[in-house]
Amino acid sequence: MPARSSDGGSAPEAPLPDKAEDLGRWYDEVLERAELIDVRYGVKGFVVYRPNAMRIVKRVYSMFERELEARGHSPMLLPLVIPMANFRRETEHVKGFEDQVFYITEAGGKPLNEKLIVRPTSETAIYPMMALWIHSYKDLPLKLYQSVAVYRYETKATRPLLRGREFLWIETHDAFEDERGALAQIKEDLEVARRVYESLGLAFLVVEREPYDKFPGAESSYAYDALLPNGTVLQIATTHYLGEHFTRAFEVTFVDREGNRRRPHTTCFGIGISRTLAALIMTHGDRYGLVLPFGLSVHDVVIVPIVQGGSAEGVLSKARRLEEELGAAGFNVHLDDSEDTPGDKFYRWEMLGVPVRLEVGRREVEGGYVTLFRRDTRERERVADADLARRVGELAREILDNLRRRAWDRLAESVADARTREDVVRLAREGRIIRANFCGEEECARAIKEETGYEVRGRRIDVDERPTGNCAWCGRPAKRVVYMAKAY
Amino acid sequence: MPARSSDGGSAPEAPLPDKAEDLGRWYDEVLERAELIDVRYGVKGFVVYRPNAMRIVKRVYSMFERELEARGHSPMLLPLVIPMANFRRETEHVKGFEDQVFYITEAGGKPLNEKLIVRPTSETAIYPMMALWIHSYKDLPLKLYQSVAVYRYETKATRPLLRGREFLWIETHDAFEDERGALAQIKEDLEVARRVYESLGLAFLVVEREPYDKFPGAESSYAYDALLPNGTVLQIATTHYLGEHFTRAFEVTFVDREGNRRRPHTTCFGIGISRTLAALIMTHGDRYGLVLPFGLSVHDVVIVPIVQGGSAEGVLSKARRLEEELGAAGFNVHLDDSEDTPGDKFYRWEMLGVPVRLEVGRREVEGGYVTLFRRDTRERERVADADLARRVGELAREILDNLRRRAWDRLAESVADARTREDVVRLAREGRIIRANFCGEEECARAIKEETGYEVRGRRIDVDERPTGNCAWCGRPAKRVVYMAKAY
Repeated sequence: MPARSSDGGSAPEAPLPDKAEDLGRWYDEVLERAELIDVRYGVKGFVVYRPNAMRIVKRVYSMFERELEARGHSPMLLPLVIPMANFRRETEHVKGFEDQVFYITEAGGKPLNEKLIVRPTSETAIYPMMALWIHSYKDLPLKLYQSVAVYRYETKATRPLLRGREFLWIETHDAFEDERGALAQIKEDLEVARRVYESLGLAFLVVEREPYDKFPGAESSYAYDALLPNGTVLQIATTHYLGEHFTRAFEVTFVDREGNRRRPHTTCFGIGISRTLAALIMTHGDRYGLVLPFGLSVHDVVIVPIVQGGSAEGVLSKARRLEEELGAAGFNVHLDDSEDTPGDKFYRWEMLGVPVRLEVGRREVEGGYVTLFRRDTRERERVADADLARRVGELAREILDNLRRRAWDRLAESVADARTREDVVRLAREGRIIRANFCGEEECARAIKEETGYEVRGRRIDVDERPTGNCAWCGRPAKRVVYMAKAY
Repeated sequence: MPARSSDGGSAPEAPLPDKAEDLGRWYDEVLERAELIDVRYGVKGFVVYRPNAMRIVKRVYSMFERELEARGHSPMLLPLVIPMANFRRETEHVKGFEDQVFYITEAGGKPLNEKLIVRPTSETAIYPMMALWIHSYKDLPLKLYQSVAVYRYETKATRPLLRGREFLWIETHDAFEDERGALAQIKEDLEVARRVYESLGLAFLVVEREPYDKFPGAESSYAYDALLPNGTVLQIATTHYLGEHFTRAFEVTFVDREGNRRRPHTTCFGIGISRTLAALIMTHGDRYGLVLPFGLSVHDVVIVPIVQGGSAEGVLSKARRLEEELGAAGFNVHLDDSEDTPGDKFYRWEMLGVPVRLEVGRREVEGGYVTLFRRDTRERERVADADLARRVGELAREILDNLRRRAWDRLAESVADARTREDVVRLAREGRIIRANFCGEEECARAIKEETGYEVRGRRIDVDERPTGNCAWCGRPAKRVVYMAKAY
C-alpha cells in the first residue's frame, strides 16, 4: 500500500543520519531526539537516564531478574562502599581494578580514617559476608544477585551507555560445593543471557575469552559479544568461573558431606544493562528512531485518529472502541488524541519505537477496517476490524522474529574466514568479523591488535569448531578457532 | 481450637525477646534470625540487605512506583555524583546538608580536579537538567521520580534501616506553572503515601512540620510519622513545597501561556523505603518473628505436610492438590516438603511472617478439612477442603484489616492531651504521644526538647484541629494544635 498522502502528513523533522554511514552521529542524535539519555550533566562519564530510557531499563532488568529468580537466585543488596582492606585481599583482582576505582576520602568536612572504594564490582564486598554465611554444604549452593550501578574510572573516551564511569548492571555471586556445580552454573548463566537476548532480538557470539583476557581473579571467563551495525562487537554479559581464588583470599570454608572442611567454588555473572540498552538501540534502530519489539517501548500500539472536516465523532468513537478492545486483549495500547497533527504523532511514536501504529480516519470508519503501520518494516496494511486483535497478536511475534532474523543475518554475513595474515589484514580493513585458527599466544593477539586494531575475542562455545591448520597470524600450530573483531 | 500437640511440635528455638519490654533487642534479633539485614559488613552505617529483606524492599518499591506512575510520574535516573559547584548553588540547602555529605576526591590513584559529592538527595543534580528541559508551559508539569540509595554521613548512632549512612528511598522532583499546581501535588503525594501505608497496615500521623523544621530550601514540609511500638515516631515520608527557591538558584524559567517568562514552582517527595521496612517490621512483628500482610512475605500461604507412620502418600497428595488449587486461585503458595521437622518448618515460616500456614496430616485427610494457622493472631481453625480458597481469600483482607486496626488502636491509645507544662512532662515520661496547644516558637520547641526529649512534630493536616487555649508549655497565645513525640 502506498504511503499515506494528504491526511497523514510526513514527519515534521528531518530523519536521523544514516546509521550505515555514520553510526556515531546516528547514535548521538537518537539518544537526544528520542529523549533517552542526556549527556549534558557536566561530569565526564556520567549521564542522566530520561524516562524513555529508564522505562526500557526497568523492563530489561525485570526480564533478567525473572530468569535469575526462576533458577534459584535471590535478590540482595550490598553497600556501595568497600573498605580498602577488603579490596586488597585478592591480589589479581586488585591489580585488575585499582587504576579504575573512585575513592571516598572525606565526609562531613573531615578526612575518613579509612578510604572507601566505590564499588567497581562487588566480589570484595560479598566474600567477607560469604565467610559469615557459609558453614556447611547445607548452605550451598548460595545464589545471589543485585541490580545496581557500578563505578569505574574509565580513562578512555566515554560514550553514553557503551562506556561510562557509572553503568547499570546485574551481578550474581554464587557459591557451590565443587567445580562441577560451578561449571553447571556457568552454563545456566549463559542460558539466562541467551533467553533474554533472544527475546530482545539481539545477535551475539558466545565465546570463552582467551586465558590472558580473563576477569581479574577468574579461572575462565565467558562472554556475550553483541554485533553492532558498524561491525564492531560489544561485550554485553560475562560470566566467570572463579575456582577457589576468592574463597581462598577471603577464607570462606564449609564442612562437606563427609565432614571435611573445604572451600566453595564460586562464579560471578555480570549483565550489562546499560550496554544491553545500547545494543538494543543500535541493532534495531533506523533513520526514524528506535525500533523495538513488543513489551519494551512506552506502548505496544498507538492509535492515531485522523480527523478532517466534520467526521471527528465517528473517527474518535472508532478509535476509542479499538483502544478498549486491544486493552481488553492485554495489549499496552494508547490513543493519541492530543492536538498535534497526525504527522507530529507519527514522528513521535516512530522515534520511540512503538511497534504498531493504527491510523483511523474517515475511510477506515466507512470501510470497516484499520490502517496498520508496523514500525520494523514501515509498511502499511489494511486489517478488517474483526481481525485486528488477532493481527496485533501475530505481529508481536512477527516483529520480534523479523528483528532477530535481520540481526542474525547481518552477523552471518559479517563473519569471514581468514587463513593467512594477509586475510586477517584485508578482512579487518573491510570491517568483517574474522574466524581464524589461532595459536593461543598473548603476544600473537597483541600483534594482531597493533597491526589491525582487532581483538581476539575467544572461541565460540555454542558450536564445536576445531582448528584445521596453523595460526592464521603466526603460522605456528593452532590451538583453537577464534573470532576476531573490533571491540567497542 | 487448642494448639497442635504431638504431630505439630513446637518451635525449635526460643521465642524472640518481648517487643514491649525491649524493642531494641527484639529488633536486632529479628533482623538476624529472619535473615533480613546483616550488620557485620564492617563500615559504620552500611548494612547488607539479605534476600528476605530485599524481596520486601522490591515489593514496597513497586507499590509506590505503581501509585506514582498512575498519577503521571515517570522514572528517571540521575548520576550518583554531584559536582561541588552545583551543590553550592542553593544556600539554605547546602547549609542543611554540607556537614552530612561524603566526598569523592580521588580516582585511579590521582586527585580529581573537582571534588564530587555523593548524593545525599538529588535537587542539586536535577535542577541544572530542569533548566535544560523546561522552556514553555507545555513542558509542565514535569513529574519525575527515581528509586535509589542516598548517602548521608550521620554522626548520631546508626541503626539498621532506621538511621544509616546509606538508605533506600524514592525521590520525586516535580515542576509546575504555579503555586496552585505545586500545592495540589503535595496533596497527591500525601495521598500516594496514605494508600501504600494503609495497604501495609501502618499507623501514622500526617503533619505539617513547624517552619523552623522544614527541609533545607523548602517553603513548607509535610511528613508521615509512623508510630513505633515503643511510643516513638519515625518519619517515613516527607513532601516539600519548594516554591521558587530552587528554580531561582538554578535559573529554571519557562514562557507561560501569556508569553511571559516565569519560574516554575516545584516540589519534591522523599519516600523512605528502608524506614518503611523498619516500620513494617516493628509495627506488626511479635515474639515469633515478622508478621506481614499478603503480598509481602516470600509466600502468602505455606503448606506443611505432617507425616506419621504409613500415611505419607495420602498426606502428600492432598498437600499437592491444595498447592495446585491455591496456586490456580492466584495465591503465592509453597508446599514445604523438605526433610525438616514440622516444628522447624513452623518456626521458619512464622519467623518470615508468612500470613497463612496450612497443616495437613492424617486427621485432615480423613476428615476432609485443613488446619489453617493465621500468623497475625496465631490461631488455628478448621476449614473444609471445599471452602479453602474462599477462606484464604477472606484472610488476605482480614489479616490486613486486623494488623491495621491494631496499629491504629495503639496510636489512638497513645495520644494524650496536655494543657500545662506539667502535663507535657508527665505524659512524656509515660511515653505517650502528646497533643497540645502550641505558640509556634522555635525556642519553646527547643526548651521542650531539652527538658523532655520530645520534639514538636507539627500540626495534623488530615483533620482540622484548632487551638482552644494558650501554649501548653509557655502559656503564650497558641497558634495551632501540634503533636509532640520522641522521634527516632
